Amino acid sequence: MSVTPLPKGFKLAVAEAAIKAPGRNDMALIASENDSSMAGAFTTNKIKAAPVVMDMVKARRGFGRAIVINSGNANACTGMDGMRDARGMSEGIAMALRVNEQHVFACSTGVIGVPMPMKKVRPALERLVQGLGNATVEDVARAIMTTDTFPKMTHRIIKIGDVEATITAVCKGAGMIEPNMATMLCFFMSDLAVDDFALKAALKSAVDKTFNMLTVDGECSTNDTVLMFANGKAGNFEIKKGSSEYETLERTLEDMCRELSRMIARDGEGATKLVEITLKGAMSRTQAVIGAKAIANSLLVKTAIHGGDPNWGRIISALGCSGIRVDEEKVSISIGKVQVASNGMGTGKEKKAAEELQADEIAITVDIALGKAEATVITCDLSEQYIKINADYTT
Amino acid sequence: MSVTPLPKGFKLAVAEAAIKAPGRNDMALIASENDSSMAGAFTTNKIKAAPVVMDMVKARRGFGRAIVINSGNANACTGMDGMRDARGMSEGIAMALRVNEQHVFACSTGVIGVPMPMKKVRPALERLVQGLGNATVEDVARAIMTTDTFPKMTHRIIKIGDVEATITAVCKGAGMIEPNMATMLCFFMSDLAVDDFALKAALKSAVDKTFNMLTVDGECSTNDTVLMFANGKAGNFEIKKGSSEYETLERTLEDMCRELSRMIARDGEGATKLVEITLKGAMSRTQAVIGAKAIANSLLVKTAIHGGDPNWGRIISALGCSGIRVDEEKVSISIGKVQVASNGMGTGKEKKAAEELQADEIAITVDIALGKAEATVITCDLSEQYIKINADYTT
Repeated sequence: MSVTPLPKGFKLAVAEAAIKAPGRNDMALIASENDSSMAGAFTTNKIKAAPVVMDMVKARRGFGRAIVINSGNANACTGMDGMRDARGMSEGIAMALRVNEQHVFACSTGVIGVPMPMKKVRPALERLVQGLGNATVEDVARAIMTTDTFPKMTHRIIKIGDVEATITAVCKGAGMIEPNMATMLCFFMSDLAVDDFALKAALKSAVDKTFNMLTVDGECSTNDTVLMFANGKAGNFEIKKGSSEYETLERTLEDMCRELSRMIARDGEGATKLVEITLKGAMSRTQAVIGAKAIANSLLVKTAIHGGDPNWGRIISALGCSGIRVDEEKVSISIGKVQVASNGMGTGKEKKAAEELQADEIAITVDIALGKAEATVITCDLSEQYIKINADYTT
Repeated sequence: MSVTPLPKGFKLAVAEAAIKAPGRNDMALIASENDSSMAGAFTTNKIKAAPVVMDMVKARRGFGRAIVINSGNANACTGMDGMRDARGMSEGIAMALRVNEQHVFACSTGVIGVPMPMKKVRPALERLVQGLGNATVEDVARAIMTTDTFPKMTHRIIKIGDVEATITAVCKGAGMIEPNMATMLCFFMSDLAVDDFALKAALKSAVDKTFNMLTVDGECSTNDTVLMFANGKAGNFEIKKGSSEYETLERTLEDMCRELSRMIARDGEGATKLVEITLKGAMSRTQAVIGAKAIANSLLVKTAIHGGDPNWGRIISALGCSGIRVDEEKVSISIGKVQVASNGMGTGKEKKAAEELQADEIAITVDIALGKAEATVITCDLSEQYIKINADYTT
């Protein structure tokens, strides 16, 4: 496997703070040598971790210089002390780098409701700044892992005019974390020059279509965060919204986010299969999203897929339960290439469909034939292993 | 255990039609000797089984003479043939009893999308009518079982003026059925005289507060049905809405429905604990219901309870995810008698709370301190056994 390249003007570092336990790097630093355009997307959970609350305010300014990340503690439900600690992390980095603290972001993932052990974190901040350049993209991807079983990263090299630019992303998420939360963190670095309005729009569009259409267990975390820095070091003319370069950027980000979403679903806790559920023929995109998510989050559908059972009755019932408009007589359902239901009734092809369910990746398509809107949700099956992972832990 | 009494003027029968497999009674008949006041409550799933579609129309008339029930086949997603078969079941009973077919209801539970085997069902209808009086309340409760592990029934004797009247109910439901659906069927029989407007209102109120606040796995079935007949044979003055007798009826039905809901949660597939989740201090009843159900349906909360882990971070995160208004700083959470979180932060009493989770019945109370509305949801934990039951079956 080739090494994931780092865009121009970025440096990385990892360090061991032993926040939860010693023996691995549990902190990472991503730094740009100049102030970058930045954009962020954050959890919609009303209970937000302290670093999320802080980053959301900073993101409004649109400047990014560095991101400090820790695993092992979510710094969520930690009250005013949590806010002080989130600020302490970004201030520590800002002082050592001699940059504006408002341009330094902090992200945390791990257990909820436990104070951040700042005695361990503070000295590690120094080591991160001193060590800048000591880490690869994969090192960072590994340092931010919790229950993930593999590091998640990807990159693209795109041409803007004559200029070659790099976009690299690292990401974590595996259903839920240590064992509290389905925290998904994702960091994009690029040497592209992008107007920050355009960057925000492109990132939002990509996240809406991919990470926001990903469900492992229907839970959203207090800490979910996507951040992107674009520092302009590639030397292209700044990308503005409405240009063809903007479209390239948007398409590239969407493609990268989809690739990372699929990695997360594949690494879903206890998951054995990657599942894509497409709802077609809905009256609106919103209806399509609600219906597809209802099917994707149905325990009966997820357990049927795990058991290799082409039980389309569970799919149509979850759809009927979702609240969107459905006419039973118009519903058709396919599992892989096999149509199992047509006009709301079975086609008798369960045996062939059961073969499709043996695959590693499964596409389920439901056509409700009422309109033209559609949505695809990325998910995984539900196994006994998921229950074991999440029941056998004791706080 | 004493025998559950049958109200005056009712007769019961059970029969074996061997719909799915031979060896047990899988059909039941409940008949009143006269036309009763009746009321019904039906699934909100947009995909409704044929007998549900039929019964909803008949229920508008408010007269009930008989209910024929089968287990082993849901008669759902069966198209026009399914409607013909549902009608065939009620017509068969109506003809043999020589009563108006519009006053005969049919209920089915079992596998979805498979045609009803009317060749087996039709002769059983005759045997049911001939055998009226051959069955006890428990026989009926057993005949309508699917994955239930015990028969579910209850009764109350109430005094209306000088008159003693009986209300008896049988019920089934265990998460989901054979292995398609969380079908919940419940039949109330009473010799009370009740105005049918009052009966509908009392049943609706009771069902809204109990069965509609019950969740095993967040799935609603295509077949859920509650029916009540009140035939007036006790001889009381007809109960009208607004009277003190009406309040007695409403309270009694709610109490019975709650008892049966708890039986269903206790018999939830793979369940080891009965859990009641109360959300207090909400801005409105609707907000309280949405918040309490979000917690009750969270896989993380259900697996934590199963594992005996007082992981309140999962509870507050599920609450934050529900979309209702929440101020983190105002949230307090108790597990049993132990307060684990106060003002959105942990109290450090995890050890004591873990002891509370060893109990067979667990009450979790979340106070969001914004208003005066509250709601209680009845649910159960989620175990590996649930996955096994629902994954290992093959259509």
